[in-house]
Amino acid sequence: MQSLITGIKPTGKIHLGNYFGAFKPAFEFQKDYQSYIFLANLHALNQIQDGKELKETSFDLCANLISLGLDTENSNFFLQSDVPEHAELCWILSTICSFGVLERAHAWKDFKNKGLKDPKLGLFSYPVLMAADILLYNVDIVPVGKDQKQHVEIARDLAHKFNGIYGDTFILPTPVIQKEVETITGIDGQKMSKSYDNIIAIFEDENLVKKSIMKIQTDSLPVDAVKDPNTCNIFQIYKHMANTQELANFKDKYLAGGLSYGEAKNTLFDKFMVYFKEARAKKVKLLEKPDQIHQILEKGKLQAKKRAQTTLNLVKEKTGLTL
Amino acid sequence: MQSLITGIKPTGKIHLGNYFGAFKPAFEFQKDYQSYIFLANLHALNQIQDGKELKETSFDLCANLISLGLDTENSNFFLQSDVPEHAELCWILSTICSFGVLERAHAWKDFKNKGLKDPKLGLFSYPVLMAADILLYNVDIVPVGKDQKQHVEIARDLAHKFNGIYGDTFILPTPVIQKEVETITGIDGQKMSKSYDNIIAIFEDENLVKKSIMKIQTDSLPVDAVKDPNTCNIFQIYKHMANTQELANFKDKYLAGGLSYGEAKNTLFDKFMVYFKEARAKKVKLLEKPDQIHQILEKGKLQAKKRAQTTLNLVKEKTGLTL
Repeated sequence: MQSLITGIKPTGKIHLGNYFGAFKPAFEFQKDYQSYIFLANLHALNQIQDGKELKETSFDLCANLISLGLDTENSNFFLQSDVPEHAELCWILSTICSFGVLERAHAWKDFKNKGLKDPKLGLFSYPVLMAADILLYNVDIVPVGKDQKQHVEIARDLAHKFNGIYGDTFILPTPVIQKEVETITGIDGQKMSKSYDNIIAIFEDENLVKKSIMKIQTDSLPVDAVKDPNTCNIFQIYKHMANTQELANFKDKYLAGGLSYGEAKNTLFDKFMVYFKEARAKKVKLLEKPDQIHQILEKGKLQAKKRAQTTLNLVKEKTGLTL
Repeated sequence: MQSLITGIKPTGKIHLGNYFGAFKPAFEFQKDYQSYIFLANLHALNQIQDGKELKETSFDLCANLISLGLDTENSNFFLQSDVPEHAELCWILSTICSFGVLERAHAWKDFKNKGLKDPKLGLFSYPVLMAADILLYNVDIVPVGKDQKQHVEIARDLAHKFNGIYGDTFILPTPVIQKEVETITGIDGQKMSKSYDNIIAIFEDENLVKKSIMKIQTDSLPVDAVKDPNTCNIFQIYKHMANTQELANFKDKYLAGGLSYGEAKNTLFDKFMVYFKEARAKKVKLLEKPDQIHQILEKGKLQAKKRAQTTLNLVKEKTGLTL
């Protein structure tokens, strides 16, 4: 069975955009690949420098991912900071990584263009940690979004360079660009994103979910009017959760006239509650016994460490760090 | 008992300049401080990118240090790469270390001024690893040469910054500038340094030591002439090994006339062989049972890890990396 590695950065409330745009496509790989999935908390230190916040956000993300379908039986799910080999390999790679390559990396150029005051070393060097994240597991593929392709390229370049200096050590990983998922529409019609404050959060209280859905922006056509599902934000959100039959039915209602937006929003709300019923119930149960999460992470850590150590031992041997 | 940390980078053959200029003053601290002394092989990767060379150089340095008086009973002597916490803390600190501080570091500016082609990230970021080396052990003092004072300052700044963000965690270490040791004269009269090819190596074969000493440059005064010990390279090297009485006797010979430089060189050679007799014999014995070195490093690693883990666990707790 081929293998893959993927990291997920702790972030605030999980919304439909995260799920349909990132997690769901990522989870689909689990069936066909031995998967190493880590919560990228070392990377998160570049954004969250508040211990309580990072801890809570990380724990919540673990609970969310497990509830939403991360296969903890067959995948290895772990905290990045629980496997010291990530940081160790990061240092070793930093001694062969050209300063110039990092200066030319997209993300760093973006930071500079934005005129970020007092940027930190971690923002400059994180592609090297990312390369270590990847190379440590000597995996076959790395599923990535389009914007992360450069990271895998840097990892491949460093692997190639290391192999050239010290002899064959790393497999050059293949980036698999996840098939373009349509942008998920937010309640205001823009791309759903926390920064636009237009999200529908998945694990929110039922009444808050309803509140978000009721705020979806529509045009002001009267109830009787024929409506266009393709330009309606309600329909655009609905379509990700519905099956073909449901979609056809809902479309018909739009085209027949007589559908009020209030009714449409209720249909979306009901669909949402059915679609995420299992996940939401699972999370409630999980949080009743949070130790289950610790156990899952402990198991994942042991599996990940085994594989990471094999690689790092070889690296230490080749570089002469082992006496 | 107060504590100290010091790192020694693997380098080629050890010579009188290393010993009298660095190791001997460093060893003197061992009596008064609980000492953590590490072989800085992660730093060495910035200079030595040949696995065989780094391994041999590191092993040889271990044997040399132990033979020359590193107190393996009371000090903790270990390989930097054996304690992953160095690299882990290095990453964590890199997320709070200003890029600008590193741009302004002496060593980086030197590299740039020398027009170094394709410098690596490790050359830029090593002061952060050095800060981690120091802060990880929460020691009282860091004995340093004048040129390393900036490194301890960066470590102090990062400790201060971290404490400010996350609450009191690190002790601010005090740099103790080693009392100015006179520069050790090389066989050509310049400062003794491998790069000038003017060294007297300590663990060289006896006949090669003699050869180096016989090559010491002198003036061409005849045997009968009164000679000035203060301008004679032979005497300048001799003085580090001799006691007061021996020094006075040798000086008298210079001033009395009738001392040939050949005879003076023989006196120096004899003194050298007596001074380093014990160390040279110890090294021969050590290398007969190289496992002794592994055992010493293993013991040192366990002690170092214990202290490093205590600090890193606290850091992980404060930053929210521990769930």
